[in-house]
Amino acid sequence: MQPKIIHHCFTTFKDTSPLVHNITNDVANNTVANVLLAAGASPAMVHDIKEAPEFVTLAQALSINIGTLTQTTLQSMLATAEVAHSQNIPWILDPVAVGATSFRQQACTELLKFKPDVIRGNASEILALAGMSSRTKGTDSGDSVEGAKEAAQQLTQYAKVVVVTGAIDWVTDGTQGYAVDHGHPMMTQVTAIGCALTALIGGFIGANTSKTEEANSDSLLNAATTALAYYAQAGEIAAQQAKGPGNFYVHFLDALYNLEAQTLIDNLRVTSS
Amino acid sequence: MQPKIIHHCFTTFKDTSPLVHNITNDVANNTVANVLLAAGASPAMVHDIKEAPEFVTLAQALSINIGTLTQTTLQSMLATAEVAHSQNIPWILDPVAVGATSFRQQACTELLKFKPDVIRGNASEILALAGMSSRTKGTDSGDSVEGAKEAAQQLTQYAKVVVVTGAIDWVTDGTQGYAVDHGHPMMTQVTAIGCALTALIGGFIGANTSKTEEANSDSLLNAATTALAYYAQAGEIAAQQAKGPGNFYVHFLDALYNLEAQTLIDNLRVTSS
Amino acid sequence: MQPKIIHHCFTTFKDTSPLVHNITNDVANNTVANVLLAAGASPAMVHDIKEAPEFVTLAQALSINIGTLTQTTLQSMLATAEVAHSQNIPWILDPVAVGATSFRQQACTELLKFKPDVIRGNASEILALAGMSSRTKGTDSGDSVEGAKEAAQQLTQYAKVVVVTGAIDWVTDGTQGYAVDHGHPMMTQVTAIGCALTALIGGFIGANTSKTEEANSDSLLNAATTALAYYAQAGEIAAQQAKGPGNFYVHFLDALYNLEAQTLIDNLRVTSS
Repeated sequence: MQPKIIHHCFTTFKDTSPLVHNITNDVANNTVANVLLAAGASPAMVHDIKEAPEFVTLAQALSINIGTLTQTTLQSMLATAEVAHSQNIPWILDPVAVGATSFRQQACTELLKFKPDVIRGNASEILALAGMSSRTKGTDSGDSVEGAKEAAQQLTQYAKVVVVTGAIDWVTDGTQGYAVDHGHPMMTQVTAIGCALTALIGGFIGANTSKTEEANSDSLLNAATTALAYYAQAGEIAAQQAKGPGNFYVHFLDALYNLEAQTLIDNLRVTSS
Repeated sequence: MQPKIIHHCFTTFKDTSPLVHNITNDVANNTVANVLLAAGASPAMVHDIKEAPEFVTLAQALSINIGTLTQTTLQSMLATAEVAHSQNIPWILDPVAVGATSFRQQACTELLKFKPDVIRGNASEILALAGMSSRTKGTDSGDSVEGAKEAAQQLTQYAKVVVVTGAIDWVTDGTQGYAVDHGHPMMTQVTAIGCALTALIGGFIGANTSKTEEANSDSLLNAATTALAYYAQAGEIAAQQAKGPGNFYVHFLDALYNLEAQTLIDNLRVTSS
Repeated sequence: MQPKIIHHCFTTFKDTSPLVHNITNDVANNTVANVLLAAGASPAMVHDIKEAPEFVTLAQALSINIGTLTQTTLQSMLATAEVAHSQNIPWILDPVAVGATSFRQQACTELLKFKPDVIRGNASEILALAGMSSRTKGTDSGDSVEGAKEAAQQLTQYAKVVVVTGAIDWVTDGTQGYAVDHGHPMMTQVTAIGCALTALIGGFIGANTSKTEEANSDSLLNAATTALAYYAQAGEIAAQQAKGPGNFYVHFLDALYNLEAQTLIDNLRVTSS
């Protein structure tokens, strides 16, 4: 991917300040909102079925995360995803710990019917979602990104783009693939950092696609890759300044807020893979 | 407003350490609790209808915020507001994004029947609540405080005091008005800072009014104005120490914790307006 | 308690990285997850009745906290506690503000039927749970740890170990008792620090007991005491670096992350009491 494409996706996101509609989990709500604000997007959390399907039409993107799924919220997710899908509002699915319970597996099966534009998970989640075995322990991954590539490619039958995050993130549309070699292990020591990345990718695909037609996979791939590089570079900057996860999170938000397009491009480690 | 009144409201709040009962949103719960604790109040989040109307009678004030409203929680809000109203427990309403969906508008119409003592919103929310047009985008305001003054005055038919927050906050009881010229734009880059202000105003009106009779509008006006000046001065102090929203929030809590009455008075920019 | 026992419990916890299943409150979710991660455990929040009783069998421990109890969640707590109890998965109960409403009292009565391995509360909560009078004001304690010792001993008819937290924590199995003289008042100025301690004790009892048989009270007592000393020493370290609750919380997570076994032992103030 050419740096100028990433530069373009990044500045478009910053100029647009997209409104991202999140139906996310109880642990992540605050972190997702703060990450989106720090990055320059506008977060909204609206989840009752009485208003979520109405509200989503105001948003540039929808982000659904099943971290603390309930039966009530699932109905709202399904109704809202259906509206997003039918109105070309790009949406992203985060299948948190999908392999852990049958409730999560069934929920994801239903959600996939409304064709998320992007799926983002760790290796264990991507494997489980594709029906392959995984070594999930709660929300942490026991599998490698490399070992989840085949599963990610299979999942492109449901979503135009699939993102597997780990030490080196991998993003694919089923034919092309990019490795994003940024980040720091400290990112796994703070809760909801993965959930917030999903929402941020939501913002990037919302800003970089058009509502007047269905999003094409090239635009989605470019937007998702840019979000991954931006997020993980911010993680690197924060890790240099922190000796533990408390300070890491604080500096991470600041790095998201302050990182500029040129810095992102100058340090880019994104390769075709 | 004379500085000595603000000094009195501030020290009364600090000496009282009021218990504030919050029925607030999923994004704000943690931030609201930490702001109240840092300021010296005692937070409680109790929202099931089985206990919220009972619990509120223990509190000095009730704060209701519709940020992530659900049908279930709305019933609890209504039952609890009714008790607060009938027992002279002052309560404050934060009509988050009221203009965004019909569910929110109907919910606010029902809540207004129980006569909140104070309403606190951004300009777009105050305009929408008064039935005037607004340019809401999610939870962020697209309107100016100046443009919402008429709407705020109209809303004093429902609430004794109305607060419009923005670059310069404005508070009115329908006849008198005060401008609070404090704060920093960084306050809008951290989630739930507005929600937590609502709860803090709740604490100030709880500490500065009597439960034995209905709160009078002078007491409410003084208490709300003091809370606004205190909160926004803490924002200024924090902004001097922070280069991004992560550090800003950390220093903001510290500033709320450490700011003293004399500092507040020495730097006061509150004018009749 | 011999330092070598504490050293053993601590290193076993760190080596195990236990998965702790939390059904906790809306204020605490994020803080609980970050505390567990910083300490080296793996948090999961799963609370719908459709999956919580299934998920708990994957966990090393279950932590239940009634802070923002709802009728729906209570049913899930009961079903999940029943599974934990029947399968020897150790579980801990945090009876937040149990004295404040009849709903909380009834909920705790039902939960106690499934015999929590540990109960953790402040003095007011322990007194109220034992049916003695208390001076609860919301979630803060109005009673002294000393005054709750008899109540704690009574509660050992329901739980093998009872922890009363305060300026000096006290832990008992009904016959033996230990005082943990660590901590700092700033720990009470940050929300959910008590809730997160409950979850951390959960992690310690999960790592230091065997699933193949019912946990014995010696193991539980040792594990809980170690968690208390570790947590409160981290609080002391953080307080040295912070001038307010914002920075305190940040440094507290870092201290949990960085504190080593030898430091813990070198500074230990745990006495038989």
